[in-house]
Amino acid sequence: MSRPRILIQFDSDPQPSTFDAVVAVDAGVEQLFRHGSINEDNITGLVHGAMFTRGGDDLKSTALFIGGTNVSEGEALLSAVQKAFFGPVRVSVMLDSNGCNTTAAAAVLSAGKHLDLSSTTALILGGTGPVGRRVARLLARQGAAVRIGSRSPERAAEAAAEVAVDLNDVHIEGVSTAGDEAMTAALADCQAIFACGAAGVQLIDQNAIQRASAIKLLVDLNAVPPAGIEGVEATDKGAERDGRVAYGALGVGGLKMKIHRAAIERLFQTNDQVLDADQIYAIGEALLANG
Amino acid sequence: MSRPRILIQFDSDPQPSTFDAVVAVDAGVEQLFRHGSINEDNITGLVHGAMFTRGGDDLKSTALFIGGTNVSEGEALLSAVQKAFFGPVRVSVMLDSNGCNTTAAAAVLSAGKHLDLSSTTALILGGTGPVGRRVARLLARQGAAVRIGSRSPERAAEAAAEVAVDLNDVHIEGVSTAGDEAMTAALADCQAIFACGAAGVQLIDQNAIQRASAIKLLVDLNAVPPAGIEGVEATDKGAERDGRVAYGALGVGGLKMKIHRAAIERLFQTNDQVLDADQIYAIGEALLANG
Amino acid sequence: MSRPRILIQFDSDPQPSTFDAVVAVDAGVEQLFRHGSINEDNITGLVHGAMFTRGGDDLKSTALFIGGTNVSEGEALLSAVQKAFFGPVRVSVMLDSNGCNTTAAAAVLSAGKHLDLSSTTALILGGTGPVGRRVARLLARQGAAVRIGSRSPERAAEAAAEVAVDLNDVHIEGVSTAGDEAMTAALADCQAIFACGAAGVQLIDQNAIQRASAIKLLVDLNAVPPAGIEGVEATDKGAERDGRVAYGALGVGGLKMKIHRAAIERLFQTNDQVLDADQIYAIGEALLANG
Repeated sequence: MSRPRILIQFDSDPQPSTFDAVVAVDAGVEQLFRHGSINEDNITGLVHGAMFTRGGDDLKSTALFIGGTNVSEGEALLSAVQKAFFGPVRVSVMLDSNGCNTTAAAAVLSAGKHLDLSSTTALILGGTGPVGRRVARLLARQGAAVRIGSRSPERAAEAAAEVAVDLNDVHIEGVSTAGDEAMTAALADCQAIFACGAAGVQLIDQNAIQRASAIKLLVDLNAVPPAGIEGVEATDKGAERDGRVAYGALGVGGLKMKIHRAAIERLFQTNDQVLDADQIYAIGEALLANG
Repeated sequence: MSRPRILIQFDSDPQPSTFDAVVAVDAGVEQLFRHGSINEDNITGLVHGAMFTRGGDDLKSTALFIGGTNVSEGEALLSAVQKAFFGPVRVSVMLDSNGCNTTAAAAVLSAGKHLDLSSTTALILGGTGPVGRRVARLLARQGAAVRIGSRSPERAAEAAAEVAVDLNDVHIEGVSTAGDEAMTAALADCQAIFACGAAGVQLIDQNAIQRASAIKLLVDLNAVPPAGIEGVEATDKGAERDGRVAYGALGVGGLKMKIHRAAIERLFQTNDQVLDADQIYAIGEALLANG
Repeated sequence: MSRPRILIQFDSDPQPSTFDAVVAVDAGVEQLFRHGSINEDNITGLVHGAMFTRGGDDLKSTALFIGGTNVSEGEALLSAVQKAFFGPVRVSVMLDSNGCNTTAAAAVLSAGKHLDLSSTTALILGGTGPVGRRVARLLARQGAAVRIGSRSPERAAEAAAEVAVDLNDVHIEGVSTAGDEAMTAALADCQAIFACGAAGVQLIDQNAIQRASAIKLLVDLNAVPPAGIEGVEATDKGAERDGRVAYGALGVGGLKMKIHRAAIERLFQTNDQVLDADQIYAIGEALLANG
């Protein structure tokens, strides 16, 4: 008889997310250990407690989830978790701070239903943030030409370089989106726009979109009005907007949730999984392939 | 197959109550998410996590419980929770900070076993506090004439006005209980005394009770000696004391616990319940009616 | 139908131990209530919540576990828990801060597989700390002559007196281990050495051990290199080292874990268990006797 499935929720916020907790339970977690205010100093002992309590095949019935609103802190925690492992004595771990990985995967997979990503040029507005970088990475790995947009061309270029650093044969560049002229240039020959900026901030207006005649797809990941892409509703899910296909944050939310649950389930298959952007995208891809 | 029943325990104290947690488990909660140090600033995101994770009929399998020793903070949290809801996208919620609602319901229902509340005049000692106000409200809604007693007649009058504010055709007045003369006047023609003061504080002595010949029922909700009503034992449960029926805090505790469990169960019947004093009283009434 | 088995984890550290939590689940705990930052001021109400929620035979389905890295704080919490009980209205409780009791029990039981403890003289290095004192107590109760070693002879003597205070007919003395001469005297006629010092601190070297010809058994409870006893590996489990039997921290870990799980299970048999060093040793003894 196998051990109960335990998920240890490490959250960088003082109050651990209830969202992540409900999804964990709905993915079959039987015992959820919830920790808030987790940082690089206090996580190691908690990881050791997960590693040194179950042996052999039972080790895969304990897993770790890293969440919280701050994705950078989450990334630091993922790194700290991996340092705490001793060779094969380890447990599976998933990073989804602020829903970054499941959201990015759902956004790109939704786009892939309408466009051949390998021949797509995409502009990512608010592209220097953690979700934008993940969308950029996933698109680039599918063969798309990716433009990371930012009001600061320096930060855009820096983000593009950082996203590309461990990828081969990808096309990622940083572009300025400050002002009409720059935006028009950034949109030239683009088929898709992804808006990954802060909540409640409009990143592009209707005029700019109308000028970009090649645009076929709009994906706005901002759920808080006003929309990041003017004219896209949060509930849009493949909706037609002025001849273009539109997705809003809630429109990709159903797929995001399915990917989140499937990723939690995956954690318990072996004890050595590290689920970050690429792995979570692959889980979503498999979900769509299997219907 | 329905989702596991999740209760999110929001406690305003740093350490969430173990009492409320055990009762939740014994009421059939399968997964309990416990949060301490909850306030109006950090609760909204946690409520959203409950609202946006399960859809359709499954939404009713997630519910909220608000507890903690400070009832005023609990009331503020209940208000914040309701503000966080988006129309029908909501989950059921129960307030029972410091056991205020289950205790008040059990006290009034216990009294109703011995008196016709619709023709009863009752004095509530320590009546301006949260439990006293709830007892006043419940009694008044049953048709009793209610006197909210306090050493400060101003605070008594204020509390009476506040309790009456959303009720129709009720008889609630504030009375002074400072000194023998005021107490005698406050007790004139009363059939019942409820003591709802601070733990370990005697609110009325035997002499005052003996002078009030119409008194038939004494309900003391203070569990910590000395008793709030001199001569009543915490374990009294319909005990006879000098020809009067007496209830102590532990004496109403059994019914209180049943009401608490039944209220938790009720939370999971639909996703739109708001269980405060009136609703929890009605649950207790149904329990007694069903034996 | 019996109530779900609830264990309330009281941890003196800010983040409650995941180690203790996993072991609890694997010992059959169905609902685990986890509390960090527990101290003598905030524990009483939480204990009352455990005591006053279930009645009669159900009371034994709620139990308490005290953990955390600081054993002294754990001992103070155990004392506070017992003060919170009201006569027979109590729940079972186990103390294992820093694994002190399960480790000491496993160490002494492992030694007993190789030596007749009733005729053994044992030196306990780092013997004034909480694990060392527990090893001393358990050995002395089995009839061994016990030397509590410390670099400070005053602290050694003090610890010896404190360990002996509630025991009858035991042989416990404090000895200095500061310098070669003192160490040689401390080891005279000893058959066993237990190292119970701080992590990563060597307490005795090969030269000193070689000079002590009567030594047959080495038990080192330090898991962090360098070893507390030079030449003992953390994984040693009855290994032969220069003609002596050796145990390291991981070598006693398997038995320690079995004892920990069995002790958790024991908590739920009656509502009045207090599991500290002696009781946990007895549980381990029974485990070995039953195979």
